[in-house]
Amino acid sequence: MVKGTLYIISAPSGAGKSSLIQALLKTQPTYDMQVSISHTTREKRPGEAEGEHYYYVSVDEFQRLIAEEAFLEYAEVFGNYYGTSRPMIERVLSQGIDVFLDIDWQGARQIREKMPQSRSIFILPPSKDELVRRLQGRGQDSDEIIAKRMNKAVQEISHYDEYDYLIINDDFDLALHDLKAIIRTERLRLDRQKMRNEALISKLLAD
Amino acid sequence: MVKGTLYIISAPSGAGKSSLIQALLKTQPTYDMQVSISHTTREKRPGEAEGEHYYYVSVDEFQRLIAEEAFLEYAEVFGNYYGTSRPMIERVLSQGIDVFLDIDWQGARQIREKMPQSRSIFILPPSKDELVRRLQGRGQDSDEIIAKRMNKAVQEISHYDEYDYLIINDDFDLALHDLKAIIRTERLRLDRQKMRNEALISKLLAD
Repeated sequence: MVKGTLYIISAPSGAGKSSLIQALLKTQPTYDMQVSISHTTREKRPGEAEGEHYYYVSVDEFQRLIAEEAFLEYAEVFGNYYGTSRPMIERVLSQGIDVFLDIDWQGARQIREKMPQSRSIFILPPSKDELVRRLQGRGQDSDEIIAKRMNKAVQEISHYDEYDYLIINDDFDLALHDLKAIIRTERLRLDRQKMRNEALISKLLAD
Repeated sequence: MVKGTLYIISAPSGAGKSSLIQALLKTQPTYDMQVSISHTTREKRPGEAEGEHYYYVSVDEFQRLIAEEAFLEYAEVFGNYYGTSRPMIERVLSQGIDVFLDIDWQGARQIREKMPQSRSIFILPPSKDELVRRLQGRGQDSDEIIAKRMNKAVQEISHYDEYDYLIINDDFDLALHDLKAIIRTERLRLDRQKMRNEALISKLLAD
């Protein structure tokens, strides 16, 4: 059985990560690639749907899953838990579907340790000016908030060299093309191609 | 300094390897990627040019180069020597240019050993029928000659699993796209991107 690949994707806020992942998944059927859906203890917001934005669970349930070591990684943010379910990811991968995990460097580290066969991609903005511009948003935030965002972005960027691949998101279409090239190439690796083309190969080698 | 990647490309006769490499190089400037030119002791044929098809050398000169360990690999075929010059390949790679080496599994093995940072790609035909059809050529050869070719092709195919990547040449454009995806992906690897974008990265990380 051909297994899918788990892709870890990280970037500082303002690098265009979410738009890239969305654009990528739009071009591919869900039986081919999917984005990972996290578990969370935070309340469902209007317009959100179970299993589409998150899997919504109680704090008790979340803690039970932690105790069972069901999470590849989890974190507490502003009093709410967020986690990535290992059995869920493994079920999807076992169907030959690639899974994308949008996560920060800390989560990436935990996942890399538990799933060493995963591939990790870091996305960078094209310049400091562009990063600042994107972090300033629509000009409605205080200098202090922008400085905090900048600080967090630089923190995230400082971990870029823990990743397998580095994409510079200067031209969006080119960055999307780069992301697709990585995915296609992973599928051309010997082990995956060998499994996928077993019948062809044994026929070619038969007398 | 960003170094180029050495690509080893092998395939059975009839898999479309040469057409793929030619089509690939046509889309790229020579300061970006080049095909490796072998040294040979065979005579120059009409229409061939020094440094374009081969570097033509005497048997004495070739043997001197062997003694100097100047070849990544060499072989004798029908009384003539053919070899891949290591200094020549390294000079091109050091300019940041990718080099393609069209070679059989035996040469590939020698090169892989001496240049472990190279990447190797094996190209397969889409089916046994198609392979036979391509090996039959224009129907002017004896059954015996075709059987010999077939035998040689199967021998070559039997080494497919010594390679990093496997491309099935069913649809030519798709196979070319696959080849390009591999090359693009190699350039997105952390070590290469890190060198290429040193200035950007230090600027992003500066206060």
